[in-house]
Amino acid sequence: MTHWWQSLLKDIHSPHHFWAEQALARQASLVKPPSSLGRLETLAAQMAAIQATETPQARPRAIVVFCADHGICAEGVNAFPPQITHQHLRNFIGGGAAIAVLAKLTGSELVICDVGVDADVSHLPGIRHSKVRRGTRNFAQEPAMTPAECDAAMHVGYTTVCELRERGIRVVAIGEMGIGNTTAAAAVTAALTGKPPEVVTGRGSGLSPEGVAHKAAVIRRALEHHRPAPHAPYDILVKIGGLDLAAMCGAFLGCAAGRLVAVADGYVSTAAAALAVALAPAAREFIVFGHRSAEPGHQVLLDMLGVTPLLQLDLCLGEASGAALALSILDAACSLHVGMMTFAEAEMDVG
Amino acid sequence: MTHWWQSLLKDIHSPHHFWAEQALARQASLVKPPSSLGRLETLAAQMAAIQATETPQARPRAIVVFCADHGICAEGVNAFPPQITHQHLRNFIGGGAAIAVLAKLTGSELVICDVGVDADVSHLPGIRHSKVRRGTRNFAQEPAMTPAECDAAMHVGYTTVCELRERGIRVVAIGEMGIGNTTAAAAVTAALTGKPPEVVTGRGSGLSPEGVAHKAAVIRRALEHHRPAPHAPYDILVKIGGLDLAAMCGAFLGCAAGRLVAVADGYVSTAAAALAVALAPAAREFIVFGHRSAEPGHQVLLDMLGVTPLLQLDLCLGEASGAALALSILDAACSLHVGMMTFAEAEMDVG
Repeated sequence: MTHWWQSLLKDIHSPHHFWAEQALARQASLVKPPSSLGRLETLAAQMAAIQATETPQARPRAIVVFCADHGICAEGVNAFPPQITHQHLRNFIGGGAAIAVLAKLTGSELVICDVGVDADVSHLPGIRHSKVRRGTRNFAQEPAMTPAECDAAMHVGYTTVCELRERGIRVVAIGEMGIGNTTAAAAVTAALTGKPPEVVTGRGSGLSPEGVAHKAAVIRRALEHHRPAPHAPYDILVKIGGLDLAAMCGAFLGCAAGRLVAVADGYVSTAAAALAVALAPAAREFIVFGHRSAEPGHQVLLDMLGVTPLLQLDLCLGEASGAALALSILDAACSLHVGMMTFAEAEMDVG
Repeated sequence: MTHWWQSLLKDIHSPHHFWAEQALARQASLVKPPSSLGRLETLAAQMAAIQATETPQARPRAIVVFCADHGICAEGVNAFPPQITHQHLRNFIGGGAAIAVLAKLTGSELVICDVGVDADVSHLPGIRHSKVRRGTRNFAQEPAMTPAECDAAMHVGYTTVCELRERGIRVVAIGEMGIGNTTAAAAVTAALTGKPPEVVTGRGSGLSPEGVAHKAAVIRRALEHHRPAPHAPYDILVKIGGLDLAAMCGAFLGCAAGRLVAVADGYVSTAAAALAVALAPAAREFIVFGHRSAEPGHQVLLDMLGVTPLLQLDLCLGEASGAALALSILDAACSLHVGMMTFAEAEMDVG
């Protein structure tokens, strides 16, 4: 079977290190001790390389939240009932959800995309209507998606990013919302890393210790049933992923192909990023990892990717909230890089 | 000897926990899983308690940078020559320094205060001229300050904060600039914590490993000479502190007495905060610790205070730069606390 995204992978190459080197040389010339801005310096260099410029910019930008339901909820793996997904959609467009507040605060366009909510929300305004199907199947019993459904969801993420790029967006924070998706993220993480489900399964939106143990047992049985190969990310995504994960994976690939800065959010977003990196290793260099979630499996994924996220504030909300917080760090890195004076400009004698 | 600040200490009491409890109750009612905003929730509660309100605010705010020179530079403990201090002052008012860029980015008033620069800068506009003396004495040979000088510098910090408060400022980021001040901070940290100088001494603005060893040896000799008592913070400040440290200590005390949110910066700022907390333990509850510096001694101080700073981005610049970055986290915490909808308002069924 051929897939639309196979040709996309060929368009993903490492950013030009020339611009990163230029950026680091500028940082060394600014009125401060060498390297004293720490990770803000390497962040500016990463963004300069991605944007192929001496003057990286964190605006204009968008926050994209892919929303979908998960059939695995039938196994009782959640603290909240599944109908929360479509109910919470209204809070995104109504302005009362965390990410709506943060989008306004950070001056970011907010794009809410229905890629698989298990309800008819076609009447709701202000939403990108791209539903592939009403939720995934229960992956404890059968594959979460067909390959055609997975490809369609990946295409939703990709085209969303392409349209933002055409409108001049330079930075895209990529997140999700959907009851049940930390179960899919934990299953994907266990499959990608080979770690036991018990190690990568967390409380999600608030399970008890018994609930966490049950969730891990459900994942263990599903993995034994499907036996996805660890080096087959697409197989993993189809069998035990989700429509939101597939859309985010397509969005990360779209950012890398289109030379946009992608900002990953927490556990579920990073699971999608890890799948994208498994498909196209150079995609990793286009991703800024926004924060470390309180979900224990997130660190396992970050270790596999060899990255340290910008923020560690014990968030575990999703909705791209951690990525949105990180946007202010991108703002600072770019403003300092572009706005600070050099020693020569300041006519300073540094001895 | 009596000191002006002794009566100030009597005005410092813990903030009212009633408001923190109100804030945490509101957080539990917002449209998100309980505690899923992690440290943003406890930060909002801390600010609510300090400001005695249900609706904490991170604006209007100021960033204060106390500038001073250090006689200890005569011992060759610095990567940069001392004249950098007064040269760099011009970059603050000229807009080319890191903190000038960050103040503009974060919408913060920038207050640059000369409390002890070893140069005549009285002609420079845009600076708060409060020089106590031109630099401290070399504390390897004699006390850094007289008690009268120390008290005057503390008063500069206190009155600076009081004037900001009168103008409606609610949050004050407190930082410093002065060649040699990480040596004073390390000496203060060793004296306060009892840790060996070698453990708390770092590269400052860029020393070689040999330079760090020399710096630690200078501190060790100074401590053996002065023998400050570990439970006598004022004695430590006078003998081995600095005019910038004294001013910041007065500023932290002023924030606590005036119920303002103080945001501590890196190693030197936190050393001053630790002295303030040693003088008035309740002052700690008025301080938000902005970031963890790359200087190794900073963690020792943070451990002693029992706090975890908001950001860990390997900065070691000073200038209140890490505190300024943290202001965007305060913005997010307050915006979410005030702006998010409750489950009841959203008419959501979470059952």
